[in-house]
Amino acid sequence: MITLTTFSSVPPFAIGYVRDLRVRWALEEAGLPYLLRALEFQDAATPAYRREQPFSQIPVLQDGGLTLFESGAILLHLGQRHPVLLPRDADERARVTAWMFAALNSVEPYVGNLVSLVVFSAGEAWAAGARPSAEAMVDKRLRDLDDWLDGREWLAETFSAADILMTTVLRLLDDMEMVERHGRVRAYRDRCMARPAFRKALADQVAHFTQAQAPAAAAAAVA
Amino acid sequence: MITLTTFSSVPPFAIGYVRDLRVRWALEEAGLPYLLRALEFQDAATPAYRREQPFSQIPVLQDGGLTLFESGAILLHLGQRHPVLLPRDADERARVTAWMFAALNSVEPYVGNLVSLVVFSAGEAWAAGARPSAEAMVDKRLRDLDDWLDGREWLAETFSAADILMTTVLRLLDDMEMVERHGRVRAYRDRCMARPAFRKALADQVAHFTQAQAPAAAAAAVA
Repeated sequence: MITLTTFSSVPPFAIGYVRDLRVRWALEEAGLPYLLRALEFQDAATPAYRREQPFSQIPVLQDGGLTLFESGAILLHLGQRHPVLLPRDADERARVTAWMFAALNSVEPYVGNLVSLVVFSAGEAWAAGARPSAEAMVDKRLRDLDDWLDGREWLAETFSAADILMTTVLRLLDDMEMVERHGRVRAYRDRCMARPAFRKALADQVAHFTQAQAPAAAAAAVA
Repeated sequence: MITLTTFSSVPPFAIGYVRDLRVRWALEEAGLPYLLRALEFQDAATPAYRREQPFSQIPVLQDGGLTLFESGAILLHLGQRHPVLLPRDADERARVTAWMFAALNSVEPYVGNLVSLVVFSAGEAWAAGARPSAEAMVDKRLRDLDDWLDGREWLAETFSAADILMTTVLRLLDDMEMVERHGRVRAYRDRCMARPAFRKALADQVAHFTQAQAPAAAAAAVA
């Protein structure tokens, strides 16, 4: 049986965007059942958990005797189970891996830096000065992606794990009106998000974290 | 025959750090001969090249009928040719891919952001304000890595493509005295850099770009 580890709770703004979504989505696409293991935030720094995840993050996947971290590596592993994630043809598969790494190394670092500025450093005096160049770096990648998507439905020949990773990277820009300036990127993101497996994975993540929030919310309502 | 694409020339400060080094090193470890294709910087934005590399970057690898971008994907592809890059056992191989993604998605984004601040935004008024938190994010990852390396020679069971990627990420911090504060990370980086395949790859890159610089340098000396 496959076990997916995520946090037991997260701040409200993160619900729907936690990285276990990538793995949930891949598991739904592949039709693989799984158990959920909920990790208390303070337990992420314990030596026992850091042997599974050296950077105290989630997700972690357990599959038989294998314990695996990094969502990219987890999707690559699951791709051996089902061709909807990773095609069987060797050259096609290599091109999918190129786009998996592109999502995580050529796009997400710039998106992550901008989100970090806007969300976590908003109160810092220097953050406003840093924002224009951070936005320009994101916009450059969105333009490149928009050109690539001309005449293409998915990043590679067919839908794949690369589209799962890229969509979750693009969704980090929700409410920033940057993806919306690039028509093909927007349509591509929406096409990916219309897949039943995405909607099931998102609903499951939201349900998991909303349940976890419920006691605190109830307590706040009483207080 | 394998063909590796890199730029025909780069600014002097980049020599020895251009990302074709990752692929050169992997090819040397695997004992695979290759040809070099030198791309003029202005040709990186042409539609023809962007069909090979959508973000106008290098390296690109051509291997038979396959054209591949993203150094992570290229090393994964070459790993199928030689177990020194990617072990044959499926679980061991999965753990190597976890560290490949970790180098490129859990460490390099923070290192890249700091280097960008220090090298490319040094003249901006806001850059000094942004630096402490950028350094703290890098230092957190170096501490995590230092803990992981306790009792370990390499990131996974044996030397692998993950060590090639991580070493080239750590080298981006050369002259910043950050790796040096973490004894196990420093020793690990130096152990990787002592490999004959690294030294050959580095010497070949330096020779390539130094030759390319020579005419301009000579012209400058005359002017």
